[in-house]
Parts: sequence; C-alpha cells; structure tokens
Amino acid sequence: MSMPMVTVTRRLRFNAAHRVHNPALSDEENARLFGKCNNRNWHGHNYVLEVSLRGPIDPVTGYVIDLGRVRDIVEREVIEKTDHRNLNLEVDYLAGINPTSENIVVAMWRVLEPSLRPAQLQRLRLWETENNYVEYDGE
Amino acid sequence: MSMPMVTVTRRLRFNAAHRVHNPALSDEENARLFGKCNNRNWHGHNYVLEVSLRGPIDPVTGYVIDLGRVRDIVEREVIEKTDHRNLNLEVDYLAGINPTSENIVVAMWRVLEPSLRPAQLQRLRLWETENNYVEYDGE
Amino acid sequence: MSMPMVTVTRRLRFNAAHRVHNPALSDEENARLFGKCNNRNWHGHNYVLEVSLRGPIDPVTGYVIDLGRVRDIVEREVIEKTDHRNLNLEVDYLAGINPTSENIVVAMWRVLEPSLRPAQLQRLRLWETENNYVEYDGE
Amino acid sequence: MSMPMVTVTRRLRFNAAHRVHNPALSDEENARLFGKCNNRNWHGHNYVLEVSLRGPIDPVTGYVIDLGRVRDIVEREVIEKTDHRNLNLEVDYLAGINPTSENIVVAMWRVLEPSLRPAQLQRLRLWETENNYVEYDGE
Amino acid sequence: MSMPMVTVTRRLRFNAAHRVHNPALSDEENARLFGKCNNRNWHGHNYVLEVSLRGPIDPVTGYVIDLGRVRDIVEREVIEKTDHRNLNLEVDYLAGINPTSENIVVAMWRVLEPSLRPAQLQRLRLWETENNYVEYDGE
Amino acid sequence: MSMPMVTVTRRLRFNAAHRVHNPALSDEENARLFGKCNNRNWHGHNYVLEVSLRGPIDPVTGYVIDLGRVRDIVEREVIEKTDHRNLNLEVDYLAGINPTSENIVVAMWRVLEPSLRPAQLQRLRLWETENNYVEYDGE
Repeated sequence: MSMPMVTVTRRLRFNAAHRVHNPALSDEENARLFGKCNNRNWHGHNYVLEVSLRGPIDPVTGYVIDLGRVRDIVEREVIEKTDHRNLNLEVDYLAGINPTSENIVVAMWRVLEPSLRPAQLQRLRLWETENNYVEYDGE
Repeated sequence: MSMPMVTVTRRLRFNAAHRVHNPALSDEENARLFGKCNNRNWHGHNYVLEVSLRGPIDPVTGYVIDLGRVRDIVEREVIEKTDHRNLNLEVDYLAGINPTSENIVVAMWRVLEPSLRPAQLQRLRLWETENNYVEYDGE
Repeated sequence: MSMPMVTVTRRLRFNAAHRVHNPALSDEENARLFGKCNNRNWHGHNYVLEVSLRGPIDPVTGYVIDLGRVRDIVEREVIEKTDHRNLNLEVDYLAGINPTSENIVVAMWRVLEPSLRPAQLQRLRLWETENNYVEYDGE
Repeated sequence: MSMPMVTVTRRLRFNAAHRVHNPALSDEENARLFGKCNNRNWHGHNYVLEVSLRGPIDPVTGYVIDLGRVRDIVEREVIEKTDHRNLNLEVDYLAGINPTSENIVVAMWRVLEPSLRPAQLQRLRLWETENNYVEYDGE
Repeated sequence: MSMPMVTVTRRLRFNAAHRVHNPALSDEENARLFGKCNNRNWHGHNYVLEVSLRGPIDPVTGYVIDLGRVRDIVEREVIEKTDHRNLNLEVDYLAGINPTSENIVVAMWRVLEPSLRPAQLQRLRLWETENNYVEYDGE
Repeated sequence: MSMPMVTVTRRLRFNAAHRVHNPALSDEENARLFGKCNNRNWHGHNYVLEVSLRGPIDPVTGYVIDLGRVRDIVEREVIEKTDHRNLNLEVDYLAGINPTSENIVVAMWRVLEPSLRPAQLQRLRLWETENNYVEYDGE
C-alpha cells in the first residue's frame, strides 16, 4: 500500500525595507504607478513566509520531512540574507528585481526549490501585511 | 519565456446583521432548521472577505494586478453596499437570497467576477466567525 | 506569608445585532451623531468579552478561581442572553440602554460583579471589532 | 442548472500531550531523529483542527451542510477522545501510531471521512503550533 | 450620580522604514549597540498603534468619545505623516530622534495628547512586531 | 528634566505537558477539583509568556533595555528549562508546585525578577490557551 501524501508547512518571519520601483521607467512613471509604495526613502514590512512541501509520510519517522531541517535551510538560504535588509539594495537573489511581493516570492522559489530537494516544494505564501498575501507554486 | 503565474489576495472587512431564513418555509420549519441563527430580531457578524486573483506577473509593474485597484473595486461593488447593513433587507445583490455564508459568497462572486475582468478572480473566502469560513471558485 | 495576588482572565464570544440609537433624540439627530452605526435595519458584530478577576492563589487548588466556573457563570448570566440576539430589543439587562460598547460593558459589569462574588471582578474588556475595544473596572 | 459547489470549514481546538517516538527504533535512534520532541516525559500543544467539506449548496437550507452538525460529529468522533489526553497512550484511533502531526491528521481522516458521509470531506488541516501545520486530502 | 469611567481604544496601522542609530555615537559604537537594527540601508516594520482614552460616558451619545473622530485625528496627526515613510529622514515629529519604539511612542504622545484634548489620552501602545511592544502613559 | 518612563514587553513561547494535581490530596479529591485537567497521563499547551519591564528611556540607546538581552535572559532562565518539558516532573523552579497557570507565573517571576535586575520587571502575563491568561506583578 502506498503511503498517504501530506502537505507540511513551516512559517518564518523577516523584517525588511523596500520601495516598489522599476528602474527602467522614469521617476514620474514610477510615482504614477506605485504611489506611496515608491517613496525614495523606503518603507518596510514584517513579512511572513509560509513554506509548504508535499510528499509521502516516511514510515520510519512519521514525517514528510523534518520541519526543523526545513527551517534551517530556509533560514540559511533566504531569511538570513533578507531579514533586517533593504530588498532593493542588499539581497543577492533579488538583484535587479523590483521587490513587489509577486517578484519576491518567485525569486525565493528559485532559491529554495533546489535547496530543499529531494523534498518537493509545493507552495510559497508570502504575507506583506495582514491584509495582503501572494502565493506561488512554481508554475 | 512565459511569466510566472502568481495568486494575489486582498482581505477586506464588513459588519452586518442577518438572519438565516428561507421564506418559502414555515416559521416552524425555519426554527427547526436554523435554530438561534433564525432569530427574527437578527444577529450579526464581523465578516472578513478574501479576494484572490491569479495571473502572470506584469513585467512593467511587477504586479499581477494593483491590489489598491482591487480594493477600490471590491469596496465599491460589495463592501459599501454591505457594511453596516442588514443582509436580508438592504443589499441589492442578495435580494431574495437566504444569507447563509454559502449563498453570500456565491452572490459576491457573481458581482465581482465581471467587475474585476480582465483580471481572473480565482477564489473568494468568506469568514463569518473566527471558526467558520466558506470558499467558492466559480464552479 | 500572604499568598501572591494574581489576575486571571477568561475570554468568551457572542454574535449580536444592534444599532447605536438614543430614543430621546430625533431621527435626524441620531443619524447625525451615529452615521452608519444608526442604520434602522441594524448591523452586527462578533464580540469578544474578557473577564478578569483578581485575588490570592488558593493554596489547595493553585487557582485564584476555577476558570471553568467563571465561564459557566458568565455564559449563564450574560452570554446566553446576548448571543445571537438583538441588543436593542431582546436583552433584559440592556433594556432602555443605547448599546454602545461603553454602555454594554458597564451593564455587563452590573450583572457579573454580584454573580461572581465573593471573587473580585477586576476588569471587563469588550472587543466590538479587531480595531475597537473598551475597558471598565467598576469605577 | 446545477448548484454552485462550495467548500465549508469548521475549526475546532484540543489540548494534548505527546512525544514523537517510534517504538520499533532504539532509544538512541529516537533521540537522534526526534531531539527534544522525543522527551520521555512528554510535552504538549494547543492543536487546531480545520475540517473542510465540499458540495453543492442545498437549495432548501442554503447550506452545504449544517456546520453545527459537523461540529457535533467531529467533537464526538475525535475531539472528545483527544482533548486533554496523551496521544501516545490514550487515544484509540492512534493506537500503535507515532503521533507526528502527519500521522495524526491521516488517522483523523480515517475516522471522520466515514462519519461525515454522505457529506464529502475535502481536507483536514492540523495546526500543532502557530508556525507549523499539515494538510491531508485523503490521497 | 457620576457617570462610569470607561477606557476606549482604537487600533491603527502604519508601515515604515527605519534604522536604530544615535548620530552622536561613532559608526562602530552604533553597530556594537544596535547590531542588525543599525543596518545603514534600513529595514522596516508593520507597526500597530493602540490609542486609549479615558473618561465618563456621555449620557447623550453613550460614547466616551466618538472613535471615528479619534481615528480621524490620529490619522491626520501621526499616521499620514508616518505611513510608508522613513522614520529617520521624513517624519517631522521625529526629527533628530533615534527611532526606537520607546522614542517613537513618546514623540507620538507629545503630538496626540494636545490634539485629542479635551479628551484624556490615557495610554499609547506601539507594536513593532508581533513579539515586541511598548507602552507610554505620559509620565 | 527626567526621562519618560516606558514599559517594554517581549513575548516568548514554549510547549509543555502538565497535569493539574495537588499531591497533598487524594486521587478522588484531585479528580473532583480538576476534572480532565487532572488526567494522570498528562495533557499540554502552547504557552505564551509576555515579559514587561518598566524604566526611563536611556538617552544613549533610546531603549529602556535592549529587548534582545531580555530575550536571552528569559530563554536561558526559564524557556530552555521549560520548553518541551513536563511541568510536574522536570522543571527545577517548579519542583513541588502544582503547575496551574497562577503557580507557574509566580514561580517564573521569582526566577526572572532577580535575573533581570537592575531592570525592573513590571508584569508577567502567561497565556495557557487563546482563551485563558494570568498576570502577576510581584505583589
């Protein structure tokens, strides 16, 4: 009999500054498109990242994967590089990227998906505020 | 290369009175089916609505869609008509509808889906209390 | 040696309809003072009530008071009379009272303080929404 | 016209003790695999279970299913047997099972899926802490 | 008979960038004292401000004070000047102030206390993250 | 001019097993007084501890006290000894104490108050569930 397939999720937090800004556009166009989120002096958020992996339950451990190990990998690969940082200036995996939540979550997927293999990353959910979140599943 | 597909969500709140009541049934049958939720003098809730849209990231803005614009449309089309209202008596898009969470979420979809086009509404989630929520994806 | 004094709190929930309305004023004056909260067709909330008692720790039980007993008294004295009710029309301890959060919390104190004796009610906190709450300590 | 398909969810809570432990392994191997979660003197959690069912809206009630009835069944079938219990020692539907969140959620599915029929259980989500949750959909 | 004294609270949110930095100290001393919070490229937070006022219930309105009016004053006096801003560079009432939570909450008190008179500001609570908050009562 | 007095709070979490049990009483008396909380096989909780200190703002740092240092002290003195432990069997500062929330919070005060000096511990708040919490201020 095949083992049940379960999705497991770990939530992690980071605090960062950013501005929504496309350097290929003029300042006027950036201000028009992004409003106060384009403030040249930055603003910031307490982000919450949810990392979901899917797989069969390991009959020895009863885990899909040890979530302590997931936490360690995600902290090393993305949280330590991002927490208390400026997302436009200081984060290698975001270099040249306009740090909207959509672009951040896709960039994090590209870092995390290979780092977590052979476990199968199923979804990343990123909360920017308690009223806004984005989800990406690698598609 | 095709752009990544991301789901973006905005949460909004409204406070409303209602009673669960099917006018095609007798008072006794309504009381039997719906218990205290059928109270003829109404009760109410702090509802939370989550509006999720899915699409490719726009390479100019880095957004699937500007969530400020989503908020404006949802406020105009459903929140302003619903907040601090009686769901049985005062809400045009609920006229003749027994305002269970299931019926409310489907009625909201029918208002919001065309209003948000060409953006693709993917899911509405409606919280009635912190312990109950319903989800509809247009199916 | 005297026993340490500790404050213990139990949270309870109720859902109710109301309108903010002073019957001694004209309809115009009510509308001007209370805006959408005065809607004649009611609106409603998921209220949260926090009941705090203060006293020495009982050396036999290790409790200030059994919070299960507190829950039973509060449910019997206020929650059952209030949950899924209309605060303007149906709640005996609110008869003739404009059901603002301030007036509700004082009325609840007057019911609960004698019911909970000899335990000492220290504070009631009432949340109307996640952004508004009121506190009363019997003064 | 077919009725809209809606997913409805009820959240329930229980508090329990457990240890993560595979009796087929040595104590050393258990300690190595599970660390502090293997503590022989137990630890515990405030669990939150989300029970989601999917179906067409009943045109008479406006419900997919009465969530009060769902609550009663889930309380009788799993919560009463689990709340304030030791998951390794006292819960019949977990007998012989290493009580990781993954194994608990699958065991709960096997109890609840037949108990809730003909309603269609769609998903169980189990929160062990505010930072960890697992999901199972019967696959 | 005197009217009961009640405390009423309104919660408001703002998102901002900052760095903890004392310009009277050397860069080395700032780095030693404040660690990653001193990052020269800024970081940021989703702040939550709770504004509490205390007074007798007005017998005409049933309010201590109209919380809608409190919200308008606080938004005009502090939120609009602070939201999506850099606390070190752009906020007039924080000019020359090292924007720790402690210093922010005292500066906000000095703006809000006169603006809210004759209502009596009782306490400001400022959440920087879900795990840290500070409180000031004007003392 | 004296510096403003501010209260600062850090929240920390731990997960533990316990039973409410007074060994000076008979099993029957324990069962009668404590019901399911007396289960001999234990149950458990995700506890949240809020540590509040009060003092003047240091003009050099802008802090009452570095909350990172508070976190380190509280983790070393109470969290590491308590997390993933059995409160009746394994925690030195609770030896011989019936681990009700009231008794736990007083015992934690007696450990933390001297450890945090010269900073002034003002209040400990301990959440056992999302519906119950206790507070102690050293009195």
